[in-house]
Amino acid sequence: MEQALKYVSRQMDAFVSQLETFLRIPSVSTDANYRRDVLRGAEWLRNELLRIGIREASLVDTPGHPIIFGKHGSDPSKPTVLCYGHYDVQPPEPYELWNSPPFEPTRRNGKLYARGSSDDKGQLFMQLKAVEAFMNTKGGMPVNLKFLFEGEEEVGSTNLANFVANHKDLLAADVVLVCDTALFAPDVPSITSALRGLAYVEVSFTGPSRDLHSGVYGGAVENPANALAKLIAGLHDEKHRIAIEGFYDDVKPLTEEEREEYAALPFDEADWKESIGIERTSTEAGYTVLECTTVRPTLDVNGFWSGYQGEGAKTVLPARATAKISTRLVPDQNMDDIVDKMRAHFQKHTPPTMKLDFRVLHGGSPIVVDTSSPAMRAASDAMEAVMGKKPVLTKEGGSIPVVADFKNILGLDTILMGFGLYTDSIHSPNEHFGLDRFEKGIRSLIHFFAYFGRLAGKSV
Amino acid sequence: MEQALKYVSRQMDAFVSQLETFLRIPSVSTDANYRRDVLRGAEWLRNELLRIGIREASLVDTPGHPIIFGKHGSDPSKPTVLCYGHYDVQPPEPYELWNSPPFEPTRRNGKLYARGSSDDKGQLFMQLKAVEAFMNTKGGMPVNLKFLFEGEEEVGSTNLANFVANHKDLLAADVVLVCDTALFAPDVPSITSALRGLAYVEVSFTGPSRDLHSGVYGGAVENPANALAKLIAGLHDEKHRIAIEGFYDDVKPLTEEEREEYAALPFDEADWKESIGIERTSTEAGYTVLECTTVRPTLDVNGFWSGYQGEGAKTVLPARATAKISTRLVPDQNMDDIVDKMRAHFQKHTPPTMKLDFRVLHGGSPIVVDTSSPAMRAASDAMEAVMGKKPVLTKEGGSIPVVADFKNILGLDTILMGFGLYTDSIHSPNEHFGLDRFEKGIRSLIHFFAYFGRLAGKSV
Repeated sequence: MEQALKYVSRQMDAFVSQLETFLRIPSVSTDANYRRDVLRGAEWLRNELLRIGIREASLVDTPGHPIIFGKHGSDPSKPTVLCYGHYDVQPPEPYELWNSPPFEPTRRNGKLYARGSSDDKGQLFMQLKAVEAFMNTKGGMPVNLKFLFEGEEEVGSTNLANFVANHKDLLAADVVLVCDTALFAPDVPSITSALRGLAYVEVSFTGPSRDLHSGVYGGAVENPANALAKLIAGLHDEKHRIAIEGFYDDVKPLTEEEREEYAALPFDEADWKESIGIERTSTEAGYTVLECTTVRPTLDVNGFWSGYQGEGAKTVLPARATAKISTRLVPDQNMDDIVDKMRAHFQKHTPPTMKLDFRVLHGGSPIVVDTSSPAMRAASDAMEAVMGKKPVLTKEGGSIPVVADFKNILGLDTILMGFGLYTDSIHSPNEHFGLDRFEKGIRSLIHFFAYFGRLAGKSV
Repeated sequence: MEQALKYVSRQMDAFVSQLETFLRIPSVSTDANYRRDVLRGAEWLRNELLRIGIREASLVDTPGHPIIFGKHGSDPSKPTVLCYGHYDVQPPEPYELWNSPPFEPTRRNGKLYARGSSDDKGQLFMQLKAVEAFMNTKGGMPVNLKFLFEGEEEVGSTNLANFVANHKDLLAADVVLVCDTALFAPDVPSITSALRGLAYVEVSFTGPSRDLHSGVYGGAVENPANALAKLIAGLHDEKHRIAIEGFYDDVKPLTEEEREEYAALPFDEADWKESIGIERTSTEAGYTVLECTTVRPTLDVNGFWSGYQGEGAKTVLPARATAKISTRLVPDQNMDDIVDKMRAHFQKHTPPTMKLDFRVLHGGSPIVVDTSSPAMRAASDAMEAVMGKKPVLTKEGGSIPVVADFKNILGLDTILMGFGLYTDSIHSPNEHFGLDRFEKGIRSLIHFFAYFGRLAGKSV
């Protein structure tokens, strides 16, 4: 392990340059215009696996973007870690708000700015570099490894669950390792113990068969933009609770103990507000900011468009209005059940003048991980060794739907050991990753592989 | 007059070809990308005035698009008609819904399809062709003429009122002639006796300082799209009345007589609904479709946008949401007063988590014209002579704000003699103008000039 850690010290510059090459590939999975770039990203990553000595590494075609599967070692005396990550990224829009181009990685003040730097190329890359450090110094690993990298995480991992279900033997392991979450704060080592689920839909109202002149028809023809605004307005009640019938049926109430743990976390609300430029929060009645962003369900409009968006005035009564709307789910809500409830709500509240289109885009159920396993102890010890403090267990508001699939299909627990920060602007302009955290991540993963191999009774 | 009418019969093909040349110029006033095209449209129109013998014709620069002023004759024994029209057009979007390109005029089934064919290039061109018919046969006109053509009607005639106020003597006339309205039906000659006013605003809510990840921040940060939807939902009450405080203060109630006149108009609601692809109307409680589209005030969202509009799912909590919203006004509402009331309403209902931007884009007060003047008699007789029936007086739901300026600044009444149809798809894809109506319009205007000259005691 010491040799591997020294290797990291020597190679950090090279590691960052390699990551920059990876970040230059605009692997935006949600937009068909980037299809070839996503493939290029997959091929680059497969070649990188081969380069660091993972000889079994190949692309698996899917109806969407390719999956990469890799494998190293099959020593029955070592535990097996399944490393998961995603090489696809969020769309870069709005371009004009980036201070440097999203696909030209730029270093400023110890941070690397680029789409995907934190979510998830930079974090996935930490796994590869930790492996490289062992391979290039010891010529082997303290654990058996499998790699499962997908190109569809940002579009709901459309084809991954199917692949997992059809390759249970291939993917057999002792634990899954995911680096796609955040530290609670820069100096607070953290392991994520729960993730919210997601149900993401697109809803359209269509009224007249064409855009109409608002002077000639206005007053007698229901306006789809007004009608959809009204439906959206009704999705929350005055207490900022979600007004979809049955939405809270399966939400487990927070225990007093959980609430106390939450209240004890080192959270500076003033800093948090300042970092996103707001003066007032807006929370569900009776819950704190941290609770509302991590363990209470939410509903947000992610996009809305209708009519004329150009300069100046166009007096149009639009034919159609569309909204993208998503809910974040918490234990024990089920994604399919919530989608059904959303559909029923929209159908019930569609006025007779409107035609409703309701499409499910994306989703997954919430998850909670086992915090008492050997792998979790190894992860905790690894972070403590590198960051000097015992990690806190945090619950994260975002979603990684595939973690539920690993549990349900493969029976595997997942270690969510991430080095992002809430302030990394993932999914926003100027996404970035701290180079110090990139290095701490690699070092922590080296410790994890070593400790987990040892805990399981073996050592390289 | 007979010679002028025969000239029209001989020249119709040439007239349509000339109009097509005019329609090929994409003079979209609302979008700065078309600025040079708008100028090209103005120059083409000035040259056309010169070509038909209007020797005084020039472009007048404004801070926006140019005004064209022209003049022919100053015989004190003849009345003077000020011909108004606009050479700018609405934006063509959405392109994909046009069956032929918006700026490549295409004849199908006796109709000419192009942006501006009906609103207003085709109708403005009727004025020119009626004048040409006299000039090329009699070598003069039965009336003195002035021409005032603007390139900013579709953006609220921003600079016209100022020009009118500064050139009262130049524009002195007996009546204004505007061809920018519609026939009640193809075979129903109609003169418009009232127009609704307009107050068009753009409203934005800004919440956080950047787009946020909806999983990480959702639940504690007010979403501008949700918040703006809620405000818009509150702009109407359950009776479909506008819920802005004081909005109806100055609305004159309809008299029983007016309502009876309205009910007697030949309006086929089933046809009307079919023509725009709706099954149900949506009207203010207690009023008919015709009343709601012409003599009752209305409010519509003309555009709305926020967040991610691309393919697939982006889990963003947007920083900003914007809507274009306009109201149509009826006597005796005043545009400035209504804008003040809208602003006050938006300010009052902006939640403390949002920053409001409120911009006035466009507007004008409603107008009612004098229906008993000599010019109105001449117009009525002219349409009867060409179309075989006495015209009905109609009230139109659209707005031509400058008509109020002509009254207030110049003291002039306006004759609103238009040959459009509500089904011409103005402001929509596939705008068109019937070539039969183009010809009837030219013939009616020839009669109007002759009758009005005669009524005023003189004849050519």
